[in-house]
Amino acid sequence: MKTEGLLAQRIVNVKSSAIRELLKHSKMENVISLAGGIPSDALFDFEGLSIATHQAITEQPKSAFQYGLTEGSPLLRERICELCAERGVVATAEEVMVTAGSQQALDLVMRAIVNPGDVFVVERPTYLAALQTLELAEANIMSVSSDSDGMVVEELAELLKTQRIKGVYVVPNFGNPSGLTLSAPRRELLVKLAAEHNFLIIEDDPYGELRFTEERNATLHQVSQQVLGHTDNIIYTSTFSKILAPGLRLGWAILPEFLLHKVAIIKQAADLHASALSQSIVECYLGLDRLPGQIEKIRAAYKQKGEILAALVEKELGDHITFDMPKGGMFLWARFRQPFNATEWLKTTLQQGVVFVPGEYFFSDNPDRSSFRLSFATATEQQMQEAVARLRRSL
Amino acid sequence: MKTEGLLAQRIVNVKSSAIRELLKHSKMENVISLAGGIPSDALFDFEGLSIATHQAITEQPKSAFQYGLTEGSPLLRERICELCAERGVVATAEEVMVTAGSQQALDLVMRAIVNPGDVFVVERPTYLAALQTLELAEANIMSVSSDSDGMVVEELAELLKTQRIKGVYVVPNFGNPSGLTLSAPRRELLVKLAAEHNFLIIEDDPYGELRFTEERNATLHQVSQQVLGHTDNIIYTSTFSKILAPGLRLGWAILPEFLLHKVAIIKQAADLHASALSQSIVECYLGLDRLPGQIEKIRAAYKQKGEILAALVEKELGDHITFDMPKGGMFLWARFRQPFNATEWLKTTLQQGVVFVPGEYFFSDNPDRSSFRLSFATATEQQMQEAVARLRRSL
Repeated sequence: MKTEGLLAQRIVNVKSSAIRELLKHSKMENVISLAGGIPSDALFDFEGLSIATHQAITEQPKSAFQYGLTEGSPLLRERICELCAERGVVATAEEVMVTAGSQQALDLVMRAIVNPGDVFVVERPTYLAALQTLELAEANIMSVSSDSDGMVVEELAELLKTQRIKGVYVVPNFGNPSGLTLSAPRRELLVKLAAEHNFLIIEDDPYGELRFTEERNATLHQVSQQVLGHTDNIIYTSTFSKILAPGLRLGWAILPEFLLHKVAIIKQAADLHASALSQSIVECYLGLDRLPGQIEKIRAAYKQKGEILAALVEKELGDHITFDMPKGGMFLWARFRQPFNATEWLKTTLQQGVVFVPGEYFFSDNPDRSSFRLSFATATEQQMQEAVARLRRSL
Repeated sequence: MKTEGLLAQRIVNVKSSAIRELLKHSKMENVISLAGGIPSDALFDFEGLSIATHQAITEQPKSAFQYGLTEGSPLLRERICELCAERGVVATAEEVMVTAGSQQALDLVMRAIVNPGDVFVVERPTYLAALQTLELAEANIMSVSSDSDGMVVEELAELLKTQRIKGVYVVPNFGNPSGLTLSAPRRELLVKLAAEHNFLIIEDDPYGELRFTEERNATLHQVSQQVLGHTDNIIYTSTFSKILAPGLRLGWAILPEFLLHKVAIIKQAADLHASALSQSIVECYLGLDRLPGQIEKIRAAYKQKGEILAALVEKELGDHITFDMPKGGMFLWARFRQPFNATEWLKTTLQQGVVFVPGEYFFSDNPDRSSFRLSFATATEQQMQEAVARLRRSL
């Protein structure tokens, strides 16, 4: 068969997720994985999920199994507003679009706003699957660097002097893979720039609740409201994947008014609506008032595991490797003190039985090949000890 | 805010589903709806679904609530192969992509194959939300007419003499909205044309199991295998929505080899994977061996309801309206004997308290404004009687 010419241009050059390929190795026997960004199912609230599921299918079976509304169930949208309000994201239920994880929110929004060739700015490094949605929308991806205060927004300001941009994608809290958090002054600068230069900000916030301290940063959505008196330029996305259960595939976007109907049309063509059963279960789960306790539990566990991994890396690999102490999230982002190719190193560590994600995959350009990401969410303390010992041996 | 220039071109001209707007009316008090293509939840196997759900969350809670594989759970893909084999669609589990309903399968495939301006051919009338996926992919949509043998493939053959096309979208069994079925000779001609002219066929088969007779038409996938010895040009899509429960949002595509990896990459960017919980539940449900009985029950009920509605329309409206007796599916496709605008008529019938879908929405071009679609899936016999009486009064 002549398959030439049968594929669309938008897919020809999109890269598959390197992590996805790596995860195949991670399922091999005796391999300890520090690769995947997968929440620990040892922390799942199976009891609460079971109660909520039972409630959903007995008390509202028709809603759970029948077609629903594209934007999501009205009650769930209300509940999401309440969750958002606690994060300082004030929105009405009409502004909420329930999606199949925040991944779908990103994809729908990119399809709604990005024309081929439109410039979209990301931080270096950034979330891999956001890059994929941008590639599929045929964006012209540009990047600015990041430092210990997160995305270097000053660099963006420089870029804007000569370059019209469509939008910025940023994970302001405990970014994946960097673990970095955007500082308050930069948050303010970013929303001001968006208004001034009329671009959109996608504020992707899957990890905001997983903070290791009591300090909570104002969201860009909130800063925009405070500084500009509106949130017209902000698309806020988040998910139940990291705080409840990713298998439900439920996330959401808070959309500015001009996008609501457009994103709904794309959502309708994309899959009609998110799983009605998952929506019913999360509605019921939120009604049980177990989420706050569950988030506390996850935060405490990840904090402890993050500290353990950091201490191990410091002790065993500190001569060669440096990192910023993560203040939340699931990842430790490390780099070699001297130029060293982490992708090449992975081949050696695989033989030793450890898999991680080389940093270069998280860059749209100018990859830092000496960097790499270690996840502390899934491995046990014992596994982390063994993994770091193996990493040491492979150096 | 200047929103001008912030939207992508692909969304600017996509129409929202007229049905979706109509359904808002259908929720008004005293309005009887013959509009939506919604399965009757009076026929759902709530008992079986409850058993399967319980089994899924107790026996395999980690699979049900954790991240899964993009292509779908290996066991479910095996089970889908078994279902497909009964329909004459012989495929391996590797060829199965589990999707969020067949709607997502259509959208993913369009994104994988359609470049802006590529010609895609549909039948007149055709499924509305397939048109939306084509519009989003910026296809150049062309159409051929249909008659009592379904899509007029001979017209397509004529078109192919002067026009290169990327693909054909067809619902060969009990089409939505037409209820029509593609004849065996035309199926053979269609697959031969695809091979000869190197285009792809999307065979969308949500209704094939809902046949009112024992006669089962060979799928295009099967015909291709028989006539050409391969299925390289066929993308077969189907769903659990019409035979089990749409709220689970589970469907699938059987893909030719060259598309497997590409569609997986898009699926990954679109939502990572379909609901793991829904997949676990359907796996368990299929293990209960209740699906064959459930399909029999639905077939019998829809057949009876279809016959009742057809008899009512014949008796009360037959002077003005003609239709083909549906041989399966959920719809009665009717048209006025004399030129008459069904969209205008809807305004009158709404006042009388009946809603249906005017035919014009199902045409990409050359709409037959005298046509309209009546669904017999959801209304009760009594409601159908009252609805047809109201339609009569509004004439």
